[in-house]
Amino acid sequence: MKLLLPDTVSARLHLPEGWESVVVDGAAEIPREHWDADALVAWGPSPRHLQSAAQNLRQVQLVQSLSSGVEAIVAAGFRPEAVIASGAGLHNRTVTEHTLALLLALVRRLPAALEHQRRHDWSSELGGIHELHPADRVTTLLDARVLIWGFGSIAQTLAPVLAALGATVTGVATHPGERAGFRVIDVGHLHDELPTTDVLISILPATAATRGVVGSNVFDALPARGLFVNVGRGDVVDQPALITALRTGAISGAALDVTTPEPLPAADPLWEAPHLIITPHAAGGRPVGAELLIDRNLRALGGDGTIGNRIDRAAS
Amino acid sequence: MKLLLPDTVSARLHLPEGWESVVVDGAAEIPREHWDADALVAWGPSPRHLQSAAQNLRQVQLVQSLSSGVEAIVAAGFRPEAVIASGAGLHNRTVTEHTLALLLALVRRLPAALEHQRRHDWSSELGGIHELHPADRVTTLLDARVLIWGFGSIAQTLAPVLAALGATVTGVATHPGERAGFRVIDVGHLHDELPTTDVLISILPATAATRGVVGSNVFDALPARGLFVNVGRGDVVDQPALITALRTGAISGAALDVTTPEPLPAADPLWEAPHLIITPHAAGGRPVGAELLIDRNLRALGGDGTIGNRIDRAAS
Ligand SMILES: NC(=O)c1ccc[n+]([C@@H]2O[C@H](COP(=O)([O-])OP(=O)(O)OC[C@H]3O[C@@H](n4cnc5c(N)ncnc54)[C@H](OP(=O)(O)O)[C@@H]3O)[C@@H](O)[C@H]2O)c1
Ligand SMILES: NC(=O)c1ccc[n+]([C@@H]2O[C@H](COP(=O)([O-])OP(=O)(O)OC[C@H]3O[C@@H](n4cnc5c(N)ncnc54)[C@H](OP(=O)(O)O)[C@@H]3O)[C@@H](O)[C@H]2O)c1
Repeated sequence: MKLLLPDTVSARLHLPEGWESVVVDGAAEIPREHWDADALVAWGPSPRHLQSAAQNLRQVQLVQSLSSGVEAIVAAGFRPEAVIASGAGLHNRTVTEHTLALLLALVRRLPAALEHQRRHDWSSELGGIHELHPADRVTTLLDARVLIWGFGSIAQTLAPVLAALGATVTGVATHPGERAGFRVIDVGHLHDELPTTDVLISILPATAATRGVVGSNVFDALPARGLFVNVGRGDVVDQPALITALRTGAISGAALDVTTPEPLPAADPLWEAPHLIITPHAAGGRPVGAELLIDRNLRALGGDGTIGNRIDRAAS
Repeated sequence: MKLLLPDTVSARLHLPEGWESVVVDGAAEIPREHWDADALVAWGPSPRHLQSAAQNLRQVQLVQSLSSGVEAIVAAGFRPEAVIASGAGLHNRTVTEHTLALLLALVRRLPAALEHQRRHDWSSELGGIHELHPADRVTTLLDARVLIWGFGSIAQTLAPVLAALGATVTGVATHPGERAGFRVIDVGHLHDELPTTDVLISILPATAATRGVVGSNVFDALPARGLFVNVGRGDVVDQPALITALRTGAISGAALDVTTPEPLPAADPLWEAPHLIITPHAAGGRPVGAELLIDRNLRALGGDGTIGNRIDRAAS
């Protein structure tokens, strides 16, 4: 049994008995001698690579993505018998960590401190004795009210860490109710929450329903001390509205790990928005636990257990 | 009974029956009409304020500091009958949060991202698909080995958060053994740990024994990927040795919330050290829970309970 592994994967695999792995160029077409592969791992494949795989792997049984989102793979046209599995869960910890880095940088005003540092200026006003909860700034996550829009796998890893730092966390998702010990509301109740929200975090996927949903009506409903962080997908945010909100002080700061488009062109006005941190889609990028998932799913093909993260192709 | 409260304290106090509070200027001498005070809260007092209090408050029963360190108050010469209590524990959560902000900014390369942002440059090399554990950089706290030198009150609040993010935490203190569920070694064993340490955090107090202990022998023993963070006291670090370590690549990054001296003069070479983040003593500065401690200790004066954080003046 043959597994094709793109060269973008650095995991050290421990394959089940009877499997061999072949490393292929994840940007190029699948070489003809490997069209007999039984399984394929996809991790940042080029469109060309993906199309060639979908067209030519005529006996592929499993397409294992290491990404959370598999829209492109589902759409690529793999043979109907192939099981598609996502990398959901593999990015929970890295995205949690990056979100925390961005949020704490805003709360602890690190961009301002670095600006002063460039000018060799101690900037006593950023330190020393100060108030814990001034009305116009969020200076700590202690007692902060955090709203996470998109309360799935990543959010449920992030929320307990924020709670440990003293924040009160509420989720927004398609299905309301309690989840992982946190209160989750639906979008219909979002506007009841926003005026008392200190920090809004978006971890929404890109779907037709989420495009541009974080816009001026959201920013205007947040208090002026409010902070916004997006680590989901760029097109969830109305970027001109965000720029306006930052310029007019409708909110006091934001951080984006994802933008529209990516890479963000040098001429984009987002670069010059005040009180904004941009990182270049750096939150995830490292599937943690990919070895275990691949091992499990290859075993499941052989009848040992069930496929993890299986995508319902009919429903997608 | 009269409590003097400096104007630097923003806490809303709920005083026990029989007590009234008077707000005084924490930078100025104590006005003569308040020399009859029974208790004094000290929070960032000027030397002049402190000296005047020690000299003139002839019936003071309690001097309640809101700082962890009370060297100056013990040395000020209050009447021997006065109980001195520290603010130990009030800064655990704020200093934990700031330490995390600094450490995650280093790990997630936020200063580099902000540099690129200034140039409108997406800097794909800081994001996208990358390795989790390259040999030459710490890219995540997942699986990171963190050594906290000074494993007291603040460190024991920080350590569980680092552990929740996937790090393995070891403490260094005067007394070795297990503490709060973490392994704690003494300084005699420090050099066994350093070569496999990804992150060294100093939360040491300023004492004769800690002056300059973080020097070239420590930086040279860390791996080249190693990171260093100091939120304790500035004079624990040999600053010229740190500058050299950063310039030569003996370690790969550092963050300091405390320096020698403070404020750091504009001409100090520390400002120009590469891969360094400096914040202006901004970690604490907000005693969290001061109200409860003051209430408890005023009650204890009246015979209800015991004084919390009482300093043994004879031993100090
Ligand atoms: N920045 C990075 O490097 C990086 C890395 C990995 C992933 N991501 C992004 O993060 C996203 C989330 O990942 P995940 O693993 O947490 O996904 P997930 O487990 O599928 O969670 C998605 C959440 O969004 C909610 N949701 C979806 N559509 C919604 C709508 N229209 N209104 C309200 N809520 C909606 C879902 O609600 P229900 O639970 O009620 O259905 C669910 O709670 C991914 O789609 C990806 O775009 C970014
Ligand atoms: N940056 C800020 O804004 C800020 C705010 C508050 C406090 N601080 C600083 O943080 C320091 C620590 O605060 P804390 O509340 O955690 O104090 P703490 O509870 O007294 O803890 C001090 C720790 O240092 C250890 N220690 C002392 N001398 C040592 C030595 N020579 N070698 C090795 N270990 C030594 C002690 O070991 P044992 O436990 O074995 O005795 C103890 O674990 C304070 O002294 C203050 O300088 C900074």
